[in-house]
This record gives sequence, C-alpha cells and structure tokens, in this order.
Amino acid sequence: MSAVLRVAELNAAYAQTIDSDRLESWPDFFIEDCLYKITSADNHKRGYSAGIVYADSRAMLRDRVTALRTANIYERQSYRHIIGLPLIGATNPSGIAAETPFLVARIMRDGRTDVFATGVYLDVIRDDARGLRFAERVVVCDSRHFDTLLAIPL
Amino acid sequence: MSAVLRVAELNAAYAQTIDSDRLESWPDFFIEDCLYKITSADNHKRGYSAGIVYADSRAMLRDRVTALRTANIYERQSYRHIIGLPLIGATNPSGIAAETPFLVARIMRDGRTDVFATGVYLDVIRDDARGLRFAERVVVCDSRHFDTLLAIPL
Amino acid sequence: MSAVLRVAELNAAYAQTIDSDRLESWPDFFIEDCLYKITSADNHKRGYSAGIVYADSRAMLRDRVTALRTANIYERQSYRHIIGLPLIGATNPSGIAAETPFLVARIMRDGRTDVFATGVYLDVIRDDARGLRFAERVVVCDSRHFDTLLAIPL
Repeated sequence: MSAVLRVAELNAAYAQTIDSDRLESWPDFFIEDCLYKITSADNHKRGYSAGIVYADSRAMLRDRVTALRTANIYERQSYRHIIGLPLIGATNPSGIAAETPFLVARIMRDGRTDVFATGVYLDVIRDDARGLRFAERVVVCDSRHFDTLLAIPL
Repeated sequence: MSAVLRVAELNAAYAQTIDSDRLESWPDFFIEDCLYKITSADNHKRGYSAGIVYADSRAMLRDRVTALRTANIYERQSYRHIIGLPLIGATNPSGIAAETPFLVARIMRDGRTDVFATGVYLDVIRDDARGLRFAERVVVCDSRHFDTLLAIPL
Repeated sequence: MSAVLRVAELNAAYAQTIDSDRLESWPDFFIEDCLYKITSADNHKRGYSAGIVYADSRAMLRDRVTALRTANIYERQSYRHIIGLPLIGATNPSGIAAETPFLVARIMRDGRTDVFATGVYLDVIRDDARGLRFAERVVVCDSRHFDTLLAIPL
C-alpha cells in the first residue's frame, strides 16, 4: 500500500480514538520519546518553540489524559475531526515526513456545532515492526486564539 | 484496489448523489433488505434501537424520498457532505464493516453556511456482482438536537 | 497508483499551496491555455458561462495573484481547504474528468473561524510528462452569495 494511504489510515484511527473518547489509547499512537506540540501558525512561522501544549515523551501524554479525566472539562462537549489527505515528504532515518490539513468541529451540549479549530499536522512518522507511530506531531492551528482550557488532544 | 479506497469511493458517490439533489438514486446505494437509521451518539451509546429516522427496506427509503419531494422542505437549503477516510473492520458473510466520520454543511437560501451535522457512519457493506452496497448504514450524529423536519438523507 | 489517489494528491498539494500563502505557485497547477472559473451552483445549473472569477490562460491567473498581492486584501484572514475524495469520470484526449467536493474555512484575525465556502470542483486534468495539471477547474460554490472582494483562489 502507498505511504499516503497508510498515513491516511493512521490519521483516521487517531481521529476515531479521540472523537470516541478513548483518550487512554491516544498516547499509543506515539513512540516513547516523541514530540507532541500544539502551536499557532503565527508562532510557528516566527520559530517559537514553546507551544500552547508541549510534551516530549509518551509519559507526558499519559499524564495529560489523566489530568483531563480528573478535570472532566471535556465532558461538556464532543469533537469531530475531519482530516484531509496527507502530503508525504522525505523519508529518512527518523521517519516519514507528512503534512496533513484538519478541521475539528465542536458539538456543545445544547446541540450547537461550530468549527473549533483548523490547521495542519506536521508529522515525522516512525515505520517499524509495530506499525506506524508518531515520532513528532506538531499541530499548527490557523487561529491564534484558543480556548485557554483547550481540553482534548488535537 | 484496497477495501479502504473502494469504500471511500462508494461514500464519495453517495455524497454526490445527495448533494446534487438526485435523491431518487439514493436508495440504489442500499440492498433490498437494508437497515438505514439516523440516531444520536447518546442514544446509540445507551443501546436505543429506535432512531430518529428508521427504515428496514429499500422500499421505505423510496417512500421517504417521495415524501420529501411532496413536502418540498429540502428546497429551501442545500447541503454539502465532507466525508473522512473509512476505518475498515472485519469482513464476514454479511459484509465489510466500516466506520467513517462525516460533516455536513448546510447552505441557506440567504447564503449563510453552517455546520448542520457531524458524526460517523457505522456500515455493513455487501460486496457482490453488483458492486458495493449498504446492507446497514447507521448514521450516528454527534448532536442530540435535530431539526425535527430533518429533511435530507444523511 | 490509481487515478483517484493521484488526483487526490494533486488536490492536497493545490490546497496546501493556497493555505500556506504561496499564491505565486498556484498558477503552476494549470496548463498554459487553461480555464479557471468560480461560479455558483444556481448559475452553473442555468448554464451561465460568465462566472464571478474567469480566467482562460495561466497568464491571467498570474495577473490575479499580482493584483491580490498589491491589494493585500487577503492578509486580514487565512483559509483552510478540506477536500473530499474525487469522483473520477471519463478519460479522453483533453484529460481526466473529476468532480470533488470541498469546504473552505476562514480564520479571521480576531480568531473566529467560519465556513467560508462549500462546493465542488469540476475538473479536466491533463496527464503528461510534467505530471497532472488542470486544463479546466470550474469551482461551483453552493452559495449564491459571495464576498464581492473574494480574495483568495478557491
């Protein structure tokens, strides 16, 4: 199967895991010493490395899920990812580079639905015996303005 | 061609048929003794079988189209489906299982566009000499709140 | 690779070029004597050929980009294309016919995001030694109402 289709299937499984609220399985999409970051297009362009959310290990992703479960913030709404086709870049020892557009809709408890976030995933994807996993997933959001409590993983 | 791509093409044709207002061709995507249901994520999780829309034969789908044409409700707006990549599950004698996220935008006659519905299709797809057709399509909408006159097929 | 996947990859590259503001590269997706048009579903159905935007050569597309850069209109917001899977039609000497649904979200400088446009691309795609390029791209928008300054290419 082509790389584009394999990465597209990885993204589909990733989105389903989040949108069906199986957050505990979300860190499994990453390698142990991964980088996961949420940033804005403006900050990314300026080369700021900080990020609104920053995790450089899978353990930190697990901690984040635990925090979310404790806070129960995410229960007030649900989310739906619509993910475009990845553009596959260079493949090198650290993995397959991919850039993929996304849109996340938010469904409020009162039924209203809006566009919560749009942007691109900038990924480096490890391809080994355990299948495809993210070595890096930098989530570059188009908007500079975020819900400060930004609950769910993007 | 891989199952994922074949199912994705089926979904693309399905969406085009609805969004271009060729509703009379919509039942042809289903087998004769099909199940088509629209429900909410909450009700689906609780195991409620009722559904907001329920049809257990292609004849019922045809009746629904006739009713829509008579009521002319759908003419006041148009719709646009954006469908994600399917996750393919088990293949067994009843068909191929697939789960596919969707977003439907609604375009009002005054030009405003909003997110009308998001959710997942839970499908069982028959693969025979006539190509791929839906044995089951359960449309699980993320929102509990619906237009009670919910006009078009999703 | 199948035609559907090749065209989907072309669309992904096209969207990325626009959404990352590399507008100067946008005309390269077209052949020299191309047709590019933005119209509404209503006008398209009535057979009106005019279009809100009309260009019948790549030189006109380059002029359009220059005008946009001069006007600086587009800087006030950014855009994100989410493109569905193409339906591939007949292949003949003029190219591959394809029909593809799209949704474009608009991100305002104050952070709000809305659905800017939805519709379908009606394409004729030339497949030669230089790869896939658009001989025709007719952008049929679902809404009749447009920003009269409609800044970016769709």
